[in-house]
Amino acid sequence: MTEHQKLVTDMGQRARAAFAVLSNVTDEQKARALNAAAAKLRSDEAEILAANAADMERSRANGLSDAMLDRLMIDSERLEGIASAIEQVAALPDPVGAVIDRNERPNGLVMERVRVPLGVIGIIYESRPNVTADAAALGLRSGNAVILRGGSEAIESNRAIHKAMTDGIVSEGLPEDAIQLVQTTDRAAVGEMLKAAGLIDIIIPRGGKSLVARVQQEARVPVLAHLDGINHTYIDKTADQEKAVAIAVNAKMRRTGVCGAMETLLIDQDYPAPAALLGALLDAGCEVRGDDAVMELDSRTVSADSQDWDTEYLAPIVSVRMVGGLDDALDHIAEHSSHHTDVVVAEDEAVANRFIRSADSAIVMWNASSQFADGGEFGLGAEIGISTGRLHARGPVALEGLTTYKWVVRGTGQVRP
Amino acid sequence: MTEHQKLVTDMGQRARAAFAVLSNVTDEQKARALNAAAAKLRSDEAEILAANAADMERSRANGLSDAMLDRLMIDSERLEGIASAIEQVAALPDPVGAVIDRNERPNGLVMERVRVPLGVIGIIYESRPNVTADAAALGLRSGNAVILRGGSEAIESNRAIHKAMTDGIVSEGLPEDAIQLVQTTDRAAVGEMLKAAGLIDIIIPRGGKSLVARVQQEARVPVLAHLDGINHTYIDKTADQEKAVAIAVNAKMRRTGVCGAMETLLIDQDYPAPAALLGALLDAGCEVRGDDAVMELDSRTVSADSQDWDTEYLAPIVSVRMVGGLDDALDHIAEHSSHHTDVVVAEDEAVANRFIRSADSAIVMWNASSQFADGGEFGLGAEIGISTGRLHARGPVALEGLTTYKWVVRGTGQVRP
Repeated sequence: MTEHQKLVTDMGQRARAAFAVLSNVTDEQKARALNAAAAKLRSDEAEILAANAADMERSRANGLSDAMLDRLMIDSERLEGIASAIEQVAALPDPVGAVIDRNERPNGLVMERVRVPLGVIGIIYESRPNVTADAAALGLRSGNAVILRGGSEAIESNRAIHKAMTDGIVSEGLPEDAIQLVQTTDRAAVGEMLKAAGLIDIIIPRGGKSLVARVQQEARVPVLAHLDGINHTYIDKTADQEKAVAIAVNAKMRRTGVCGAMETLLIDQDYPAPAALLGALLDAGCEVRGDDAVMELDSRTVSADSQDWDTEYLAPIVSVRMVGGLDDALDHIAEHSSHHTDVVVAEDEAVANRFIRSADSAIVMWNASSQFADGGEFGLGAEIGISTGRLHARGPVALEGLTTYKWVVRGTGQVRP
Repeated sequence: MTEHQKLVTDMGQRARAAFAVLSNVTDEQKARALNAAAAKLRSDEAEILAANAADMERSRANGLSDAMLDRLMIDSERLEGIASAIEQVAALPDPVGAVIDRNERPNGLVMERVRVPLGVIGIIYESRPNVTADAAALGLRSGNAVILRGGSEAIESNRAIHKAMTDGIVSEGLPEDAIQLVQTTDRAAVGEMLKAAGLIDIIIPRGGKSLVARVQQEARVPVLAHLDGINHTYIDKTADQEKAVAIAVNAKMRRTGVCGAMETLLIDQDYPAPAALLGALLDAGCEVRGDDAVMELDSRTVSADSQDWDTEYLAPIVSVRMVGGLDDALDHIAEHSSHHTDVVVAEDEAVANRFIRSADSAIVMWNASSQFADGGEFGLGAEIGISTGRLHARGPVALEGLTTYKWVVRGTGQVRP
């Protein structure tokens, strides 16, 4: 065994033992432990800010970009945000123990499917140290043990936050090993986590495309991945023009850097007011890359090339295409969507229902902005990500997505004939 | 692209197109199509039996074992069984379209989680040709397209069954590509299926350990795997003695070759009648491999070695250990269980509930035989397997396990502030 195999094996075994302890901990105790962790984060403010200052100084000297430095930075206000986010998670209802369904058989056996935690969750993330607290809180709230592996830039901050959190949960009688932080910044440790089937039940990567791609490529452990949000809005000929403009502008321009932002606008060739729609986007400061039909409508548009239909801009740029109605729009979406969030704007309910049935995306919306693609907006509380995979959990993943179920069969001595 | 990459890519693309068509097919049409497939299997009896005879002859010449030849063989009666199993699947309620939950937000948006098919399912199996029909029926009933890859011994039988099934579904207007059979017996095609992420959504291996292990090792596509059933029965000191004997003997001896069979019996050292329990197993023809305490109880027992606690016998053999109560039993189970089915026999409900909470298995049973671990016994109808993984589906996997969900958001023009 290499040093990193040993490290991950040891952490995994301790996490499994902690997970077993958590299965006998009450909901109230988990909530109290998280509140204690939040309190400890506040009382450790001096240590955490000092650790973060060391990370910032080293990272600045290493030439980290301003954008990355901003992600890394913690001040009093951000620390308060981290602590209160933990309290919000503590206040969420615990999904564990809920009976999903129940079936009494003719032989008297009672079968129930009962929600249980997933087990040991590995979270691999980049420079934001708040993920250390967020992911630990969501994992623990749903009864899981977590193994956290953050970016090397944030190692001192992560250590300080991790210490405060474990101090907090231990003060309420929970096992310290329920929240573990990989202390080495060697990337080989990530490779070992990805291979630790049997010890780690699921890996959740939180970060940019290259991180997620590496994790998906290498992992032998199942991955709950969030890939691109190449999201479409289709404006049907029956769309209300006011709604169409409001939704298109909001879906693209409210925040251009979020995964729920629209990247491609598909306009029915029979929609009566395409120029006004494009004008509203252009007036809002959006670059419009269109096909030939679009370019004829407004001289401010530029020509889209074939790559545009597969690009997540995360910027004030939109690709726009005129389509020959619903089927043509669905064909485009089937070919180019990343299966995150696709929207139909239409007054004809039959058109909407066919779009809803046929668009094969985690989230399909009718007459609403794709920027609502967010666990909080869905009423789920905090989310750990938006899954673009099809298995286990799809779309916004909150506490329930961090659980599975077991079958509980209660009998009175039945044997099978 | 190699020949096999081309083959699998082409099949995958055709399956995805068929899947898109299926999303607009009604429940009734799917049921009619399956009934038509069953009828066609009956009317094609001569062709199917001739194809099977060719497989049998070639396999016999190749020295296939009698047990394997028996799995391969189809006669009139078995074909009737295959056809009527399809009709039973056709009669099951369709899980697709069910609303899992619904949430109306303060802004008027209505969020629903709606069951949808998984997509394209790849099924890799061995010599039993009935799997061709079973898996296709379960996949199609839940709206999925399937790509089937059976063992080379059964290729002629599989082709004949596949032709009858596609003829049947096409006669009811369903796309032929909804059920595809890999026509080559080259194993490289399996390797390509396992790598076909984006085309195949999930791989379900049905077969022995070496097949499942290969699939799990190589797959880049998610795998719904059924591994060993190293199942435990723990007899608590509070167990009713009559129930204990009946459950232990049934769990081991009813059918020894099924994955729900008990492999290890754990007896509380304070259980008052261990000798009677062992005697009942021995009298039923079971070999008992015990620890020292067990061997003292009956001279017919033999000594267990350390491998016995991790062995799935699938035979009239049981390993038996005396344990120091519930916690000791749970420790043994945590170390040796394959997380399939574990059972507690106890009259004390507190003991049972702690076992149910702490035993981390897909199925936990109280006072019932582990041989009930079967989708039919759970009231699920036909099953595609029993999942020992934790994600997506756990325990018996029937139609619902072949679905996922999408989020459907209905608005009236809402934009996000």
